[in-house]
Amino acid sequence: MLLRFTKMHGLGNDFMVVDLVTQHCKLNEDLIRSLADRHRGIGFDQLLVVEPPSQPNNDFKYRIYNADGGEVEQCGNGARCFARFVLDKKLTTKNHIKVETLSGDIELIVEADGNITVDMGIPKLAPSRIPFNAPQQQATYKVQTVGGEIELGAASMGNPHAVLVVDSINNAPVNTLGAELESHPDFPQRVNVGFMEVLSRQEINLRVFERGVGETQACGTGACAAVVVGCIQGLLDEQVTVNLPGGSLTIQWQGEGHSVKMTGPACRVFEGQIRL
Amino acid sequence: MLLRFTKMHGLGNDFMVVDLVTQHCKLNEDLIRSLADRHRGIGFDQLLVVEPPSQPNNDFKYRIYNADGGEVEQCGNGARCFARFVLDKKLTTKNHIKVETLSGDIELIVEADGNITVDMGIPKLAPSRIPFNAPQQQATYKVQTVGGEIELGAASMGNPHAVLVVDSINNAPVNTLGAELESHPDFPQRVNVGFMEVLSRQEINLRVFERGVGETQACGTGACAAVVVGCIQGLLDEQVTVNLPGGSLTIQWQGEGHSVKMTGPACRVFEGQIRL
Repeated sequence: MLLRFTKMHGLGNDFMVVDLVTQHCKLNEDLIRSLADRHRGIGFDQLLVVEPPSQPNNDFKYRIYNADGGEVEQCGNGARCFARFVLDKKLTTKNHIKVETLSGDIELIVEADGNITVDMGIPKLAPSRIPFNAPQQQATYKVQTVGGEIELGAASMGNPHAVLVVDSINNAPVNTLGAELESHPDFPQRVNVGFMEVLSRQEINLRVFERGVGETQACGTGACAAVVVGCIQGLLDEQVTVNLPGGSLTIQWQGEGHSVKMTGPACRVFEGQIRL
Repeated sequence: MLLRFTKMHGLGNDFMVVDLVTQHCKLNEDLIRSLADRHRGIGFDQLLVVEPPSQPNNDFKYRIYNADGGEVEQCGNGARCFARFVLDKKLTTKNHIKVETLSGDIELIVEADGNITVDMGIPKLAPSRIPFNAPQQQATYKVQTVGGEIELGAASMGNPHAVLVVDSINNAPVNTLGAELESHPDFPQRVNVGFMEVLSRQEINLRVFERGVGETQACGTGACAAVVVGCIQGLLDEQVTVNLPGGSLTIQWQGEGHSVKMTGPACRVFEGQIRL
């Protein structure tokens, strides 16, 4: 069969997007791995699949597969591309799109400028839910490292994040201190580490050392966690521009108990057809 | 404009192939670099461009660009994909295809089984033309390394190659000895280093440490150089199957003064369209 697909990216995080509303194709792990091969296949960080919803009040089911073929729960950069795709392909005309995912129903909002807003959920701040070894929830925690005691904030966006305020992201020890904190004994499930330079109450620069990966170009949950920690520490307002190496996101958070809204671009690269 | 392209690979060496016989597009370095980006573009090792010939007795002009946008002379894996492409796209019906390249006219032969044979030119064996510091041409040279004196053969296929015979490629010191020989003072333009395990007079296993790159999956000129050296040393017949990590090639060489013929597969991956 001939499978139509679209290649897209959100801040350099790249996706093969497949419409399985109007096409039929049986995807399995071996096929996904071969499609993900950047030399012998199409190449992508994640495969995004559009399926019909199982509940009539939703618009689509949204499934996400990593390059190793395993299905995963959430990807903020992918959700923006998903929304752009269903509009471009005229699978919907709505600008509020209700989508079923493995981690629950989410709403994607298409802004007037073409950017997409994704609800990233309510951050978890209690240390036991991050998880982080601390007796009680605080804005700032002290942690021992090889180089001495440092201060950090901590939050979970479904995955654990530590956030450090630095004078400049250019000379921040992202790879050394990031690697040390990633496997610090106080973070029993390891941790993503963000290095945040506060430019103003509405703008930060951010570099993120991702758990199990190293520094990445544009960690969406890292941007959310940095703004959450910055708000709790009284450094940031409700709406903040986050400049990541791969591009910028706008993060909105109204405080504890509220969900985090992430707004950013989705870019279509090319249309393809592959014979399977 | 909407540019049609095909993504192909030869033993994992991957290409974007563009027909500029029936399409018109102005390619420049910036555009090629952005197309080569594996996350924000299409992604490829080389861009192959099909153009009309400048001489009426040729069928096509064949231009090759690296991912950095620079034009290069020759690529054996690419030439096979070029031939497969012009046939698949019905730009020719010939199975002997005459092509103009930066390094001269070449002929591509489509075999009955679909494999493609490329004339890789006459190997240069004189030390000064490799270049290699040795008083005279020999089948085997002795070279001093950190681990002691070793024996190697040497040849140029347009680029310099050293070839070592090993008992087994599985435990050959490809990365350590490869890196040491690559920048050995006896090779003033540095060198590609092949480690060859002779299975029979008609079959070898080969791993190649490529100059400036490290070990690669399928070095076409390395396969040619290994067979040339093996023939000169009396170890191999005129036609040899070369098993590389990325797949197998058949190399034919009738001896000094003759050109080397390389036969192997070319694989079409997908068809694409990108708006420029």
